[in-house]
Amino acid sequence: MQIVKNPPSESWQQLMQRPTANITALFDYVKPVMDDISSRGDAALREYTMRFDGYSSEEIEVNIWEIESAVAKLNPGLKQAINVAARNIEKFHSLQQQSDRETETMPGVRCVQKYLPIEKVGLYIPGGSAPLFSTVLMLGIPARLAGCSDIVMCTPPAKDGTIDPAILYTAQLVGITRIFKLGGIQAIAAMTYGTETVPAVYKIFGPGNSYVMAAKQWAALAKVAIDMPAGPSEVLVMADDSANPEFVAADLLSQAEHGADSQVIMLTTSAQMLDKVAKEVEKQVQQLPREYIAVKALDNSKLILLQSIDEMMEFSNMYAPEHLILSVKNYRNLIKQIKSAGSVFLGNYTPESAGDYASGTNHTLPTNGFANSYSGVNLLSFMKSITIQEIMPEALEILGPVIETMAEAEQLQAHKNAVTVRLKALS
Amino acid sequence: MQIVKNPPSESWQQLMQRPTANITALFDYVKPVMDDISSRGDAALREYTMRFDGYSSEEIEVNIWEIESAVAKLNPGLKQAINVAARNIEKFHSLQQQSDRETETMPGVRCVQKYLPIEKVGLYIPGGSAPLFSTVLMLGIPARLAGCSDIVMCTPPAKDGTIDPAILYTAQLVGITRIFKLGGIQAIAAMTYGTETVPAVYKIFGPGNSYVMAAKQWAALAKVAIDMPAGPSEVLVMADDSANPEFVAADLLSQAEHGADSQVIMLTTSAQMLDKVAKEVEKQVQQLPREYIAVKALDNSKLILLQSIDEMMEFSNMYAPEHLILSVKNYRNLIKQIKSAGSVFLGNYTPESAGDYASGTNHTLPTNGFANSYSGVNLLSFMKSITIQEIMPEALEILGPVIETMAEAEQLQAHKNAVTVRLKALS
Repeated sequence: MQIVKNPPSESWQQLMQRPTANITALFDYVKPVMDDISSRGDAALREYTMRFDGYSSEEIEVNIWEIESAVAKLNPGLKQAINVAARNIEKFHSLQQQSDRETETMPGVRCVQKYLPIEKVGLYIPGGSAPLFSTVLMLGIPARLAGCSDIVMCTPPAKDGTIDPAILYTAQLVGITRIFKLGGIQAIAAMTYGTETVPAVYKIFGPGNSYVMAAKQWAALAKVAIDMPAGPSEVLVMADDSANPEFVAADLLSQAEHGADSQVIMLTTSAQMLDKVAKEVEKQVQQLPREYIAVKALDNSKLILLQSIDEMMEFSNMYAPEHLILSVKNYRNLIKQIKSAGSVFLGNYTPESAGDYASGTNHTLPTNGFANSYSGVNLLSFMKSITIQEIMPEALEILGPVIETMAEAEQLQAHKNAVTVRLKALS
Repeated sequence: MQIVKNPPSESWQQLMQRPTANITALFDYVKPVMDDISSRGDAALREYTMRFDGYSSEEIEVNIWEIESAVAKLNPGLKQAINVAARNIEKFHSLQQQSDRETETMPGVRCVQKYLPIEKVGLYIPGGSAPLFSTVLMLGIPARLAGCSDIVMCTPPAKDGTIDPAILYTAQLVGITRIFKLGGIQAIAAMTYGTETVPAVYKIFGPGNSYVMAAKQWAALAKVAIDMPAGPSEVLVMADDSANPEFVAADLLSQAEHGADSQVIMLTTSAQMLDKVAKEVEKQVQQLPREYIAVKALDNSKLILLQSIDEMMEFSNMYAPEHLILSVKNYRNLIKQIKSAGSVFLGNYTPESAGDYASGTNHTLPTNGFANSYSGVNLLSFMKSITIQEIMPEALEILGPVIETMAEAEQLQAHKNAVTVRLKALS
């Protein structure tokens, strides 16, 4: 970890450089695979699944027996934990429901904003060594609450064609409509273009490796929406002398273990705290099974001494972290100073992993500075708003000339005429 | 116009094919220009402005005297029309404000969703023959209401370096912070990367030609958010025998005059109405100054006879039109059947041009089927939501083991440990 003390503000931009991946460089690799699946459908899907995942079968879709067997098999303690997390996530996301907005902007001119579910959504759940059933909760629950009618999920199978029971248990718990044994580029292509077996969707959600990201970005250029651009995971911890160095070190490491390109930053106003956290990180990292990953992530990471809480807030707002932990006295007073962050964790007893699993907030969050412009996944990520207007004839007599004047000034005569023919009919 | 009577539903997908542009094919053209501006800043901006817009000057930014002179010069009738439209747009978008959502998902586990403005936004207003001041209203008003602190606008200058007074009047009316005389790729590049003069923003809004679209898409891959992917404008009119063929024809033409690639569709349950509208379109199009454009757009366009209101709704929902006009009896009963549309116009006296200018709804809407997944521009387009959580120590004693169980099952030991060290400290 790099230790930096009282850096001048001109150097901040440099300090907050992120390790970036060039996703667009992968388009040349991704595009032919996607095109092939777009044109050859299931046959191409099976070939790529064999090539990339080593699984070969006619059966792409998970069937009801596989789900029932997973439900029966899963450890009851884990089931119960998943159920508690699901309840909290459901409670918090239910709160995000929107009511229609309606007003008369002028007498007789009624305007309505109405939220509707995105009918067909696709969730991508990565495979690999660990089953990310928590992401099934984070995407599936708001999708169901939003009222999406088709909730499709793709996740890569093991070589023997099985899917981890925790993933299948969670998928049936939250109400996923159909589950497909597909990973990587082929999963994104299938949900984008549709095949004989896999339905096309309107929006694709979920994390993945850089090929999945590139495929999602390519799909977004073609015909679907995606949740957000994704980059490596990040945390920024703000600590004053009221923080607990053991807790801070554990929080930093919980991001660092995500991937070698993860970035963790601690800002502190206390030189003592900086030293203590550095020592704690060194100690704790050695006990981690994913030490080899965390150590690499720590190479990108920084412990920075700053002069005041205000300076720390300014740095954090410039960085726009995915996760922001406020381990400082009077953290509640700081909330109104936050300008950009994905999700915020208050005080010494709110670890970032609570938000990853069970507090109720969503863990699909903007990285790489995109917290400046993107929200984390929330209920509205699965909805769209439409507007509706109705103008009474007598109101058009008043508003019509306004429209005619503006349309004429924009040289759009047919726009004007759509009003003129109506005003004539009324007079 | 193509006339189709009672097409079998298997042929619908074919009937609703849109004329599509291949935006990604322009990346090879756009990328070097953007890279050049990214590295050489203002100097490159001036060169491209000279090359593409024929304007050469040290002055990229509009100054206060130019604005004052525009305000003084603009026709008072047009000013008043703009003011009325601005009031309606402001009233409707004000209604879209969000309050914070807050709950205890479990006792002692507090979760908050909070909306914040996107601090820095960029608005692109195309130039060309007509000054699109209405787009300044549609983007500038919600930006200001959202509380964006930096609202930057770029619009291409005439060869003599002037900007249309209607654009400058509207920009000062809605509270744009800074205005730059920049068009095309160079405007998007400047707002994406920032130069000595033009600040970088976090999200870019606004319409433009295919180069502008390609530049926005490229920028979105690099580091900013954009409002939505854009395609040619569209309208779908649903008419039964209660419709007025003169009005319907005028509405179809008001979309057709936008561009040769615009698409207009009428669905009707009445063979007579179809004939009457076809005749009216032919008559009215000849009177348009933009007839040469509208005629080309009509080549892409269709009048389709269907058997019932339900069939029309089903077709419309599959097509997901940018604009949907319901010129049918009992239109209010149909609202709940709408699954996808950008903006909806009810009855015979609500022309689509009302929404383009002055009813209060936004005219920046999803095209090309993206109404399936995207909202039109609204107040929240200029905001992002963040989540905040706070867990009381006694609540972590209950929730902590849930997190530990889940983190362990996902093989993320450091995530678990962030809870374990805290539970130990509490016991």
